[in-house]
Amino acid sequence: MQRLPTLTRARAPLTRAIDVVDEFGERGTASIPAERPLTVYVDKRELVTLMTLGAHPEWLVLGYLRNQRLVGSVDEVESITVDWDVGVAAVKTRTGIERIEERTAKRVVTTGCGQGSVFGDLMDEIDTIRLPAATLTQAQLYGIVNAIRLQESTYKSAGSVHGCALFRGEEMLLFVEDVGRHNAIDTIAGWMWLQEPLMDGGDKVFYTTGRLTSEMVIKSAQMGVPIVVSRSGITQMGHEVAGKLGLCTVGRATNRRFLCYTGVERLVLQPALAGTRP
Amino acid sequence: MQRLPTLTRARAPLTRAIDVVDEFGERGTASIPAERPLTVYVDKRELVTLMTLGAHPEWLVLGYLRNQRLVGSVDEVESITVDWDVGVAAVKTRTGIERIEERTAKRVVTTGCGQGSVFGDLMDEIDTIRLPAATLTQAQLYGIVNAIRLQESTYKSAGSVHGCALFRGEEMLLFVEDVGRHNAIDTIAGWMWLQEPLMDGGDKVFYTTGRLTSEMVIKSAQMGVPIVVSRSGITQMGHEVAGKLGLCTVGRATNRRFLCYTGVERLVLQPALAGTRP
Repeated sequence: MQRLPTLTRARAPLTRAIDVVDEFGERGTASIPAERPLTVYVDKRELVTLMTLGAHPEWLVLGYLRNQRLVGSVDEVESITVDWDVGVAAVKTRTGIERIEERTAKRVVTTGCGQGSVFGDLMDEIDTIRLPAATLTQAQLYGIVNAIRLQESTYKSAGSVHGCALFRGEEMLLFVEDVGRHNAIDTIAGWMWLQEPLMDGGDKVFYTTGRLTSEMVIKSAQMGVPIVVSRSGITQMGHEVAGKLGLCTVGRATNRRFLCYTGVERLVLQPALAGTRP
Repeated sequence: MQRLPTLTRARAPLTRAIDVVDEFGERGTASIPAERPLTVYVDKRELVTLMTLGAHPEWLVLGYLRNQRLVGSVDEVESITVDWDVGVAAVKTRTGIERIEERTAKRVVTTGCGQGSVFGDLMDEIDTIRLPAATLTQAQLYGIVNAIRLQESTYKSAGSVHGCALFRGEEMLLFVEDVGRHNAIDTIAGWMWLQEPLMDGGDKVFYTTGRLTSEMVIKSAQMGVPIVVSRSGITQMGHEVAGKLGLCTVGRATNRRFLCYTGVERLVLQPALAGTRP
Protein backbone atom coordinates (compact mmCIF):
# COMPACT_ATOMS: atom_id res chain seq x y z
CA MET A 1 0.00 0.00 0.00
CA GLN A 2 1.60 3.22 -1.18
CA ARG A 3 1.46 6.28 1.03
CA LEU A 4 0.95 9.41 -1.03
CA PRO A 5 2.44 12.70 0.08
CA THR A 6 0.33 15.48 1.52
CA LEU A 7 0.32 18.41 -0.90
CA THR A 8 -0.85 21.99 -0.66
CA ARG A 9 -2.73 23.40 -3.64
CA ALA A 10 -1.06 26.76 -3.93
CA ARG A 11 -2.45 28.93 -6.71
CA ALA A 12 -1.28 32.17 -8.29
CA PRO A 13 -2.28 34.13 -11.41
CA LEU A 14 -0.89 32.64 -14.63
CA THR A 15 -0.81 35.81 -16.69
CA ARG A 16 -0.46 39.51 -16.14
CA ALA A 17 -1.16 42.52 -18.31
CA ILE A 18 1.68 44.91 -19.15
CA ASP A 19 1.80 48.21 -21.00
CA VAL A 20 3.23 48.14 -24.51
CA VAL A 21 3.81 50.54 -27.40
CA ASP A 22 3.29 49.19 -30.90
CA GLU A 23 4.73 50.05 -34.32
CA PHE A 24 2.14 52.81 -34.77
CA GLY A 25 3.37 54.45 -31.57
CA GLU A 26 0.14 53.57 -29.83
CA ARG A 27 -0.07 52.48 -26.22
CA GLY A 28 -1.93 49.32 -25.32
CA THR A 29 -1.67 46.28 -23.10
CA ALA A 30 -0.39 42.79 -23.72
CA SER A 31 -0.77 39.67 -21.66
CA ILE A 32 2.41 37.87 -20.64
CA PRO A 33 2.87 34.63 -18.71
CA ALA A 34 3.70 34.82 -15.04
CA GLU A 35 7.19 33.72 -14.02
CA ARG A 36 8.11 33.36 -10.40
CA PRO A 37 10.96 31.89 -8.42
CA LEU A 38 10.20 28.84 -6.32
CA THR A 39 12.99 27.90 -3.95
CA VAL A 40 12.87 24.23 -3.03
CA TYR A 41 13.95 23.15 0.43
CA VAL A 42 14.30 19.44 1.15
CA ASP A 43 14.21 18.67 4.84
CA LYS A 44 15.10 22.33 5.51
CA ARG A 45 18.11 22.23 3.19
CA GLU A 46 18.01 24.56 0.15
CA LEU A 47 18.19 22.53 -3.05
CA VAL A 48 17.38 24.67 -6.07
CA THR A 49 15.38 27.66 -7.29
CA LEU A 50 13.00 26.90 -10.15
CA MET A 51 11.55 29.68 -12.30
CA THR A 52 8.00 28.66 -13.06
CA LEU A 53 4.63 29.77 -14.38
CA GLY A 54 3.26 28.37 -11.13
CA ALA A 55 0.24 26.40 -12.28
CA HIS A 56 1.00 23.20 -10.36
CA PRO A 57 4.00 23.85 -8.11
CA GLU A 58 3.56 20.75 -5.91
CA TRP A 59 3.50 18.35 -8.89
CA LEU A 60 6.44 20.26 -10.34
CA VAL A 61 8.56 19.81 -7.22
CA LEU A 62 7.62 16.14 -6.91
CA GLY A 63 8.48 15.52 -10.57
CA TYR A 64 11.70 17.47 -10.25
CA LEU A 65 12.84 15.27 -7.37
CA ARG A 66 11.80 12.21 -9.36
CA ASN A 67 13.46 13.16 -12.62
CA GLN A 68 16.64 14.24 -10.87
CA ARG A 69 16.64 10.77 -9.28
CA LEU A 70 16.80 12.32 -5.82
CA VAL A 71 13.73 10.37 -4.72
CA GLY A 72 13.23 6.79 -5.87
CA SER A 73 9.63 6.27 -4.85
CA VAL A 74 6.69 8.59 -4.23
CA ASP A 75 6.16 7.25 -0.71
CA GLU A 76 9.55 8.61 0.36
CA VAL A 77 7.96 12.07 0.30
CA GLU A 78 5.80 12.91 3.30
CA SER A 79 4.63 16.38 2.26
CA ILE A 80 5.20 19.29 -0.11
CA THR A 81 4.08 22.69 1.14
CA VAL A 82 4.14 25.60 -1.28
CA ASP A 83 3.73 29.18 -0.13
CA TRP A 84 3.69 31.73 -2.96
CA ASP A 85 3.88 34.65 -0.52
CA VAL A 86 7.49 33.72 0.10
CA GLY A 87 8.16 31.67 -3.05
CA VAL A 88 9.10 28.56 -1.14
CA ALA A 89 8.36 24.85 -1.53
CA ALA A 90 9.15 22.91 1.63
CA VAL A 91 9.62 19.20 1.01
CA LYS A 92 9.56 16.84 3.95
CA THR A 93 10.82 13.32 3.33
CA ARG A 94 10.05 10.36 5.56
CA THR A 95 13.65 9.30 6.10
CA GLY A 96 15.84 11.93 4.42
CA ILE A 97 17.74 11.72 1.12
CA GLU A 98 21.04 9.88 1.32
CA ARG A 99 24.19 11.60 0.11
CA ILE A 100 22.19 14.57 -1.19
CA GLU A 101 25.26 16.82 -1.26
CA GLU A 102 27.22 14.43 -3.40
CA ARG A 103 24.33 13.58 -5.69
CA THR A 104 23.61 17.19 -6.58
CA ALA A 105 27.23 18.19 -7.16
CA LYS A 106 27.68 17.50 -10.87
CA ARG A 107 26.56 20.26 -13.15
CA VAL A 108 25.63 19.96 -16.79
CA VAL A 109 24.25 22.90 -18.73
CA THR A 110 21.88 21.30 -21.17
CA THR A 111 20.47 22.53 -24.40
CA GLY A 112 16.83 22.26 -23.62
CA CYS A 113 14.76 25.22 -22.74
CA GLY A 114 15.64 25.90 -19.21
CA GLN A 115 16.70 22.87 -17.33
CA GLY A 116 20.38 23.29 -17.08
CA SER A 117 21.13 21.65 -13.81
CA VAL A 118 20.47 18.06 -14.63
CA PHE A 119 22.19 16.68 -11.61
CA GLY A 120 24.29 13.62 -11.59
CA ASP A 121 24.65 11.04 -14.21
CA LEU A 122 21.34 10.71 -15.95
CA MET A 123 23.18 9.93 -19.14
CA ASP A 124 24.90 6.99 -17.45
CA GLU A 125 21.57 5.60 -16.37
CA ILE A 126 20.01 5.26 -19.78
CA ASP A 127 21.63 1.86 -20.28
CA THR A 128 19.52 0.54 -17.43
CA ILE A 129 16.18 1.68 -18.90
CA ARG A 130 14.03 -0.89 -20.71
CA LEU A 131 11.04 0.68 -22.41
CA PRO A 132 7.82 -1.30 -22.73
CA ALA A 133 6.54 -2.41 -26.12
CA ALA A 134 3.98 0.08 -27.37
CA THR A 135 2.81 1.38 -30.69
CA LEU A 136 0.88 4.36 -31.98
CA THR A 137 -1.16 4.46 -35.16
CA GLN A 138 -0.91 7.34 -37.58
CA ALA A 139 -4.60 8.01 -36.90
CA GLN A 140 -3.89 8.33 -33.16
CA LEU A 141 -0.94 10.61 -33.90
CA TYR A 142 -3.24 12.89 -35.90
CA GLY A 143 -5.70 12.76 -33.00
CA ILE A 144 -2.97 13.98 -30.64
CA VAL A 145 -1.98 16.85 -32.92
CA ASN A 146 -5.62 17.85 -33.25
CA ALA A 147 -6.26 17.70 -29.49
CA ILE A 148 -3.32 20.04 -28.90
CA ARG A 149 -4.62 22.38 -31.58
CA LEU A 150 -7.98 22.63 -29.83
CA GLN A 151 -6.59 22.96 -26.28
CA GLU A 152 -7.21 26.26 -24.52
CA SER A 153 -3.89 27.54 -23.26
CA THR A 154 -1.84 30.29 -21.72
CA TYR A 155 0.17 30.13 -24.94
CA LYS A 156 -2.86 31.27 -26.93
CA SER A 157 -3.56 34.14 -24.57
CA ALA A 158 -0.03 35.22 -23.64
CA GLY A 159 2.55 33.29 -25.70
CA SER A 160 6.05 32.59 -24.41
CA VAL A 161 5.32 29.29 -22.68
CA HIS A 162 6.00 25.68 -23.59
CA GLY A 163 3.28 23.09 -23.46
CA CYS A 164 3.55 19.40 -22.69
CA ALA A 165 0.85 16.79 -22.52
CA LEU A 166 0.38 13.16 -21.62
CA PHE A 167 -1.82 11.02 -23.84
CA ARG A 168 -3.18 7.50 -23.71
CA GLY A 169 -3.62 6.81 -27.41
CA GLU A 170 -5.27 10.02 -28.57
CA GLU A 171 -6.93 10.68 -25.20
CA MET A 172 -5.35 13.64 -23.42
CA LEU A 173 -4.81 12.87 -19.73
CA LEU A 174 -3.00 16.02 -18.66
CA PHE A 175 -1.91 19.27 -20.31
CA VAL A 176 0.69 21.42 -18.60
CA GLU A 177 2.33 24.69 -19.58
CA ASP A 178 5.30 26.44 -18.08
CA VAL A 179 7.81 29.14 -18.95
CA GLY A 180 10.43 26.38 -19.05
CA ARG A 181 9.43 23.16 -20.74
CA HIS A 182 11.61 21.13 -18.35
CA ASN A 183 9.17 22.31 -15.68
CA ALA A 184 6.22 21.19 -17.76
CA ILE A 185 7.57 17.67 -18.14
CA ASP A 186 8.60 17.50 -14.48
CA THR A 187 5.05 18.50 -13.55
CA ILE A 188 3.68 15.63 -15.63
CA ALA A 189 6.16 13.26 -13.98
CA GLY A 190 5.01 14.39 -10.54
CA TRP A 191 1.36 13.97 -11.46
CA MET A 192 1.99 10.48 -12.86
CA TRP A 193 3.63 9.43 -9.62
CA LEU A 194 0.56 10.45 -7.68
CA GLN A 195 -1.60 8.21 -9.89
CA GLU A 196 0.54 5.12 -9.35
CA PRO A 197 0.21 2.20 -9.16
CA LEU A 198 -2.66 2.74 -11.60
CA MET A 199 -0.47 4.75 -13.93
CA ASP A 200 2.46 3.39 -15.82
CA GLY A 201 4.00 4.90 -18.90
CA GLY A 202 3.81 1.92 -21.22
CA ASP A 203 0.65 2.88 -23.05
CA LYS A 204 1.34 6.61 -22.89
CA VAL A 205 2.54 9.17 -25.39
CA PHE A 206 4.32 12.33 -24.39
CA TYR A 207 3.74 15.50 -26.41
CA THR A 208 5.86 18.64 -26.26
CA THR A 209 5.79 21.90 -28.18
CA GLY A 210 9.54 22.18 -27.72
CA ARG A 211 12.51 20.55 -29.35
CA LEU A 212 13.30 16.91 -28.72
CA THR A 213 16.49 17.38 -26.75
CA SER A 214 18.38 14.63 -24.95
CA GLU A 215 16.88 15.88 -21.73
CA MET A 216 13.30 15.55 -22.96
CA VAL A 217 14.02 12.09 -24.31
CA ILE A 218 15.67 10.95 -21.08
CA LYS A 219 12.87 12.32 -18.91
CA SER A 220 10.26 10.62 -21.03
CA ALA A 221 12.17 7.35 -20.77
CA GLN A 222 12.48 7.76 -17.01
CA MET A 223 8.71 7.95 -16.82
CA GLY A 224 8.51 4.78 -18.91
CA VAL A 225 6.87 6.60 -21.82
CA PRO A 226 8.23 5.13 -25.07
CA ILE A 227 6.77 7.55 -27.65
CA VAL A 228 7.41 11.30 -27.85
CA VAL A 229 5.79 13.72 -30.28
CA SER A 230 6.80 17.32 -30.93
CA ARG A 231 5.76 20.10 -33.22
CA SER A 232 9.43 21.09 -33.28
CA GLY A 233 12.60 19.25 -34.39
CA ILE A 234 15.21 17.08 -32.74
CA THR A 235 18.74 17.80 -31.58
CA GLN A 236 21.67 15.51 -32.23
CA MET A 237 21.96 14.36 -28.61
CA GLY A 238 18.22 13.80 -28.46
CA HIS A 239 18.49 11.69 -31.59
CA GLU A 240 21.40 9.64 -30.22
CA VAL A 241 19.80 8.99 -26.86
CA ALA A 242 16.43 8.09 -28.37
CA GLY A 243 18.15 5.68 -30.73
CA LYS A 244 19.93 3.96 -27.85
CA LEU A 245 16.71 3.71 -25.88
CA GLY A 246 14.59 2.45 -28.76
CA LEU A 247 12.27 5.36 -28.04
CA CYS A 248 10.03 6.56 -30.85
CA THR A 249 10.52 10.25 -31.65
CA VAL A 250 8.21 12.11 -34.01
CA GLY A 251 8.85 15.75 -34.87
CA ARG A 252 7.53 18.54 -37.09
CA ALA A 253 4.08 17.23 -36.28
CA THR A 254 1.57 19.77 -37.58
CA ASN A 255 -1.63 19.10 -39.43
CA ARG A 256 -0.99 15.85 -41.30
CA ARG A 257 2.75 16.22 -41.62
CA PHE A 258 5.45 14.67 -39.44
CA LEU A 259 8.91 13.13 -39.48
CA CYS A 260 9.73 10.02 -37.49
CA TYR A 261 13.37 10.21 -36.40
CA THR A 262 13.81 7.05 -34.33
CA GLY A 263 11.86 3.96 -33.31
CA VAL A 264 9.74 3.90 -36.45
CA GLU A 265 8.79 0.30 -35.59
CA ARG A 266 6.53 1.73 -32.89
CA LEU A 267 4.58 3.73 -35.45
CA VAL A 268 1.77 1.99 -37.32
CA LEU A 269 1.95 3.92 -40.55
CA GLN A 270 -1.28 4.63 -42.40
CA PRO A 271 -0.04 6.68 -45.36
CA ALA A 272 -3.51 6.80 -46.86
CA LEU A 273 -4.43 9.22 -44.04
CA ALA A 274 -1.71 11.66 -45.07
CA GLY A 275 -3.68 12.95 -48.02
CA THR A 276 -1.96 13.82 -51.26
CA ARG A 277 1.49 15.28 -51.59
CA PRO A 278 1.53 19.06 -51.88
CA MET B 1 47.72 47.66 -22.88
CA GLN B 2 45.44 44.67 -22.66
CA ARG B 3 46.84 41.19 -23.12
CA LEU B 4 44.45 39.03 -25.12
CA PRO B 5 44.22 35.30 -24.47
CA THR B 6 45.64 32.74 -26.87
CA LEU B 7 42.79 30.79 -28.43
CA THR B 8 42.63 27.67 -30.55
CA ARG B 9 40.23 27.70 -33.49
CA ALA B 10 38.65 24.29 -33.08
CA ARG B 11 36.12 23.45 -35.75
CA ALA B 12 33.56 20.68 -36.12
CA PRO B 13 30.63 20.03 -38.47
CA LEU B 14 27.55 22.09 -37.61
CA THR B 15 24.93 19.77 -39.06
CA ARG B 16 24.50 16.10 -39.71
CA ALA B 17 22.09 14.12 -41.87
CA ILE B 18 19.83 11.56 -40.24
CA ASP B 19 17.37 9.03 -41.64
CA VAL B 20 13.70 9.87 -41.25
CA VAL B 21 10.34 8.42 -42.25
CA ASP B 22 7.62 10.85 -43.26
CA GLU B 23 3.81 10.78 -43.13
CA PHE B 24 3.70 8.96 -46.46
CA GLY B 25 5.80 6.18 -44.96
CA GLU B 26 8.72 7.16 -47.19
CA ARG B 27 12.32 7.11 -46.07
CA GLY B 28 14.48 10.16 -46.55
CA THR B 29 17.09 12.22 -44.79
CA ALA B 30 16.84 15.37 -42.71
CA SER B 31 19.55 17.71 -41.54
CA ILE B 32 19.78 18.36 -37.80
CA PRO B 33 22.09 20.67 -35.88
CA ALA B 34 25.12 19.19 -34.20
CA GLU B 35 25.08 19.12 -30.41
CA ARG B 36 28.16 18.13 -28.49
CA PRO B 37 29.29 18.25 -24.88
CA LEU B 38 32.15 20.61 -24.08
CA THR B 39 33.56 20.13 -20.61
CA VAL B 40 35.25 23.27 -19.35
CA TYR B 41 38.28 22.97 -17.09
CA VAL B 42 39.63 26.12 -15.44
CA ASP B 43 43.22 25.71 -14.28
CA LYS B 44 42.70 21.93 -14.43
CA ARG B 45 39.57 22.06 -12.27
CA GLU B 46 36.32 20.85 -13.89
CA LEU B 47 33.78 23.67 -13.96
CA VAL B 48 30.83 22.78 -16.17
CA THR B 49 29.75 20.85 -19.25
CA LEU B 50 28.13 22.95 -21.96
CA MET B 51 26.04 21.36 -24.70
CA THR B 52 26.80 23.33 -27.84
CA LEU B 53 26.51 23.44 -31.61
CA GLY B 54 30.24 24.06 -31.56
CA ALA B 55 30.68 26.90 -34.03
CA HIS B 56 32.87 29.10 -31.83
CA PRO B 57 33.75 27.16 -28.69
CA GLU B 58 36.59 29.44 -27.54
CA TRP B 59 34.42 32.59 -27.67
CA LEU B 60 31.66 30.62 -25.95
CA VAL B 61 33.88 29.61 -23.05
CA LEU B 62 35.29 33.11 -22.68
CA GLY B 63 31.81 34.63 -22.70
CA TYR B 64 30.55 32.00 -20.27
CA LEU B 65 33.28 32.90 -17.78
CA ARG B 66 32.49 36.57 -18.33
CA ASN B 67 28.72 36.30 -17.98
CA GLN B 68 29.01 34.08 -14.93
CA ARG B 69 31.22 36.80 -13.43
CA LEU B 70 33.98 34.28 -12.85
CA VAL B 71 36.46 36.42 -14.74
CA GLY B 72 36.39 40.20 -14.40
CA SER B 73 38.66 41.17 -17.28
CA VAL B 74 39.73 39.47 -20.48
CA ASP B 75 43.41 39.76 -19.61
CA GLU B 76 42.93 37.43 -16.65
CA VAL B 77 42.67 34.60 -19.19
CA GLU B 78 45.96 33.37 -20.60
CA SER B 79 44.64 30.75 -23.02
CA ILE B 80 41.64 28.66 -24.03
CA THR B 81 42.41 25.37 -25.77
CA VAL B 82 39.55 23.41 -27.26
CA ASP B 83 39.97 19.82 -28.45
CA TRP B 84 36.83 18.35 -30.03
CA ASP B 85 38.34 14.85 -30.09
CA VAL B 86 37.88 14.72 -26.35
CA GLY B 87 35.23 17.44 -25.96
CA VAL B 88 37.33 19.53 -23.62
CA ALA B 89 38.03 23.25 -23.24
CA ALA B 90 41.08 23.89 -21.08
CA VAL B 91 41.16 27.41 -19.67
CA LYS B 92 44.39 28.71 -18.22
CA THR B 93 44.16 31.87 -16.14
CA ARG B 94 47.11 34.12 -15.33
CA THR B 95 46.59 34.14 -11.59
CA GLY B 96 43.73 31.73 -10.84
CA ILE B 97 40.11 32.52 -9.92
CA GLU B 98 39.57 33.43 -6.30
CA ARG B 99 37.01 31.52 -4.29
CA ILE B 100 35.86 29.60 -7.37
CA GLU B 101 34.23 26.87 -5.28
CA GLU B 102 32.15 29.30 -3.34
CA ARG B 103 31.23 31.42 -6.32
CA THR B 104 29.88 28.49 -8.32
CA ALA B 105 27.89 26.96 -5.48
CA LYS B 106 24.49 28.61 -5.86
CA ARG B 107 22.20 27.02 -8.37
CA VAL B 108 19.27 28.61 -10.10
CA VAL B 109 17.31 26.80 -12.79
CA THR B 110 16.25 29.56 -15.11
CA THR B 111 13.52 29.74 -17.66
CA GLY B 112 15.55 30.59 -20.70
CA CYS B 113 16.46 28.01 -23.24
CA GLY B 114 19.20 26.09 -21.66
CA GLN B 115 21.18 28.12 -19.22
CA GLY B 116 20.06 26.80 -15.92
CA SER B 117 23.20 27.13 -13.89
CA VAL B 118 23.45 30.85 -13.58
CA PHE B 119 25.91 30.85 -10.80
CA GLY B 120 25.86 33.21 -7.94
CA ASP B 121 23.91 36.33 -7.53
CA LEU B 122 23.51 37.91 -10.92
CA MET B 123 20.16 39.22 -9.86
CA ASP B 124 21.75 41.04 -6.95
CA GLU B 125 24.17 42.75 -9.28
CA ILE B 126 21.65 44.43 -11.50
CA ASP B 127 21.39 47.37 -9.13
CA THR B 128 25.01 48.21 -9.87
CA ILE B 129 24.58 48.30 -13.65
CA ARG B 130 24.24 51.71 -15.33
CA LEU B 131 23.38 51.44 -18.99
CA PRO B 132 24.63 54.08 -21.41
CA ALA B 133 22.22 56.43 -23.16
CA ALA B 134 21.41 55.08 -26.59
CA THR B 135 18.52 55.15 -28.96
CA LEU B 136 17.35 53.22 -31.99
CA THR B 137 15.13 54.55 -34.73
CA GLN B 138 12.21 52.57 -36.06
CA ALA B 139 13.95 52.55 -39.45
CA GLN B 140 17.03 50.95 -37.88
CA LEU B 141 14.84 48.43 -36.10
CA TYR B 142 13.31 47.44 -39.42
CA GLY B 143 16.82 47.20 -40.86
CA ILE B 144 17.76 44.75 -38.10
CA VAL B 145 14.72 42.56 -38.68
CA ASN B 146 15.45 42.54 -42.40
CA ALA B 147 19.13 41.67 -41.92
CA ILE B 148 18.13 38.68 -39.81
CA ARG B 149 15.63 37.62 -42.44
CA LEU B 150 18.34 37.59 -45.10
CA GLN B 151 21.01 35.90 -42.97
CA GLU B 152 22.11 32.43 -44.07
CA SER B 153 21.84 30.13 -41.12
CA THR B 154 21.93 26.65 -39.68
CA TYR B 155 18.34 27.36 -38.67
CA LYS B 156 17.31 27.58 -42.30
CA SER B 157 19.08 24.34 -43.18
CA ALA B 158 18.46 22.29 -40.05
CA GLY B 159 16.13 24.12 -37.66
CA SER B 160 16.23 23.62 -33.89
CA VAL B 161 18.80 26.31 -33.09
CA HIS B 162 18.53 29.76 -31.61
CA GLY B 163 20.15 32.73 -33.26
CA CYS B 164 21.58 35.84 -31.67
CA ALA B 165 23.24 38.82 -33.28
CA LEU B 166 25.03 41.99 -32.33
CA PHE B 167 24.23 45.15 -34.28
CA ARG B 168 25.59 48.68 -34.41
CA GLY B 169 22.51 50.53 -35.60
CA GLU B 170 21.33 48.28 -38.40
CA GLU B 171 24.83 47.00 -39.21
CA MET B 172 25.25 43.37 -38.20
CA LEU B 173 28.60 42.83 -36.48
CA LEU B 174 28.26 39.19 -35.51
CA PHE B 175 25.66 36.46 -35.97
CA VAL B 176 25.85 33.35 -33.79
CA GLU B 177 23.67 30.27 -33.56
CA ASP B 178 23.63 27.52 -30.99
CA VAL B 179 21.40 24.73 -29.77
CA GLY B 180 21.02 26.74 -26.55
CA ARG B 181 20.51 30.45 -26.92
CA HIS B 182 22.39 31.13 -23.66
CA ASN B 183 25.39 29.74 -25.53
CA ALA B 184 24.77 32.09 -28.45
CA ILE B 185 24.74 35.17 -26.23
CA ASP B 186 27.75 33.96 -24.26
CA THR B 187 29.60 33.53 -27.55
CA ILE B 188 28.81 37.13 -28.47
CA ALA B 189 29.99 38.27 -25.03
CA GLY B 190 33.27 36.42 -25.51
CA TRP B 191 33.80 37.89 -28.95
CA MET B 192 33.06 41.44 -27.69
CA TRP B 193 35.67 41.04 -24.99
CA LEU B 194 38.29 40.19 -27.59
CA GLN B 195 37.50 43.42 -29.46
CA GLU B 196 37.93 45.65 -26.42
CA PRO B 197 38.89 48.37 -25.76
CA LEU B 198 37.53 49.25 -29.20
CA MET B 199 34.20 47.62 -28.45
CA ASP B 200 31.75 48.81 -25.89
CA GLY B 201 28.08 48.00 -25.77
CA GLY B 202 26.69 51.54 -25.65
CA ASP B 203 25.88 51.89 -29.33
CA LYS B 204 24.97 48.25 -29.80
CA VAL B 205 21.72 46.38 -30.17
CA PHE B 206 21.33 42.76 -29.25
CA TYR B 207 18.98 40.56 -31.30
CA THR B 208 17.69 37.14 -30.30
CA THR B 209 15.25 34.72 -31.88
CA GLY B 210 14.30 33.48 -28.42
CA ARG B 211 12.17 34.86 -25.64
CA LEU B 212 13.27 37.87 -23.62
CA THR B 213 13.87 36.11 -20.33
CA SER B 214 15.46 37.68 -17.28
CA GLU B 215 18.64 35.87 -18.17
CA MET B 216 18.82 37.35 -21.66
CA VAL B 217 18.10 40.81 -20.30
CA ILE B 218 20.74 40.50 -17.58
CA LYS B 219 23.37 39.19 -19.96
CA SER B 220 22.72 42.01 -22.39
CA ALA B 221 23.00 44.52 -19.56
CA GLN B 222 26.25 42.92 -18.39
CA MET B 223 27.67 43.52 -21.85
CA GLY B 224 26.54 47.14 -21.62
CA VAL B 225 24.04 46.71 -24.47
CA PRO B 226 20.92 48.76 -23.65
CA ILE B 227 18.55 47.63 -26.43
CA VAL B 228 17.33 44.06 -27.05
CA VAL B 229 15.14 42.94 -29.94
CA SER B 230 13.39 39.60 -30.31
CA ARG B 231 11.03 37.94 -32.72
CA SER B 232 9.50 36.25 -29.68
CA GLY B 233 7.82 37.59 -26.54
CA ILE B 234 8.90 38.51 -23.03
CA THR B 235 8.58 36.70 -19.72
CA GLN B 236 7.47 38.38 -16.51
CA MET B 237 10.92 38.27 -14.92
CA GLY B 238 12.48 39.56 -18.13
CA HIS B 239 10.00 42.43 -18.06
CA GLU B 240 10.69 43.26 -14.41
CA VAL B 241 14.46 43.17 -14.76
CA ALA B 242 14.44 45.23 -17.98
CA GLY B 243 12.22 47.81 -16.29
CA LYS B 244 14.62 48.13 -13.36
CA LEU B 245 17.59 48.46 -15.68
CA GLY B 246 15.97 50.97 -18.03
CA LEU B 247 16.78 48.58 -20.83
CA CYS B 248 14.72 48.82 -24.01
CA THR B 249 13.01 45.54 -24.92
CA VAL B 250 11.26 45.05 -28.24
CA GLY B 251 9.44 41.79 -29.01
CA ARG B 252 7.25 40.19 -31.67
CA ALA B 253 9.48 41.92 -34.19
CA THR B 254 8.59 40.53 -37.61
CA ASN B 255 8.17 42.42 -40.85
CA ARG B 256 6.93 45.86 -39.75
CA ARG B 257 5.27 44.78 -36.55
CA PHE B 258 6.67 44.95 -33.02
CA LEU B 259 5.78 45.63 -29.41
CA CYS B 260 8.01 47.72 -27.15
CA TYR B 261 7.70 46.41 -23.59
CA THR B 262 10.13 48.59 -21.65
CA GLY B 263 12.43 51.56 -22.21
CA VAL B 264 10.32 53.06 -24.99
CA GLU B 265 12.22 56.34 -24.51
CA ARG B 266 15.16 54.69 -26.28
CA LEU B 267 13.03 54.05 -29.35
CA VAL B 268 12.69 56.86 -31.90
CA LEU B 269 9.25 56.02 -33.20
CA GLN B 270 8.53 56.65 -36.88
CA PRO B 271 4.94 55.37 -37.18
CA ALA B 272 4.76 56.50 -40.79
CA LEU B 273 7.11 53.59 -41.61
CA ALA B 274 4.68 51.06 -40.16
CA GLY B 275 2.38 51.20 -43.15
CA THR B 276 -1.34 51.03 -42.74
CA ARG B 277 -3.19 49.03 -40.14
CA PRO B 278 -4.29 45.62 -41.37
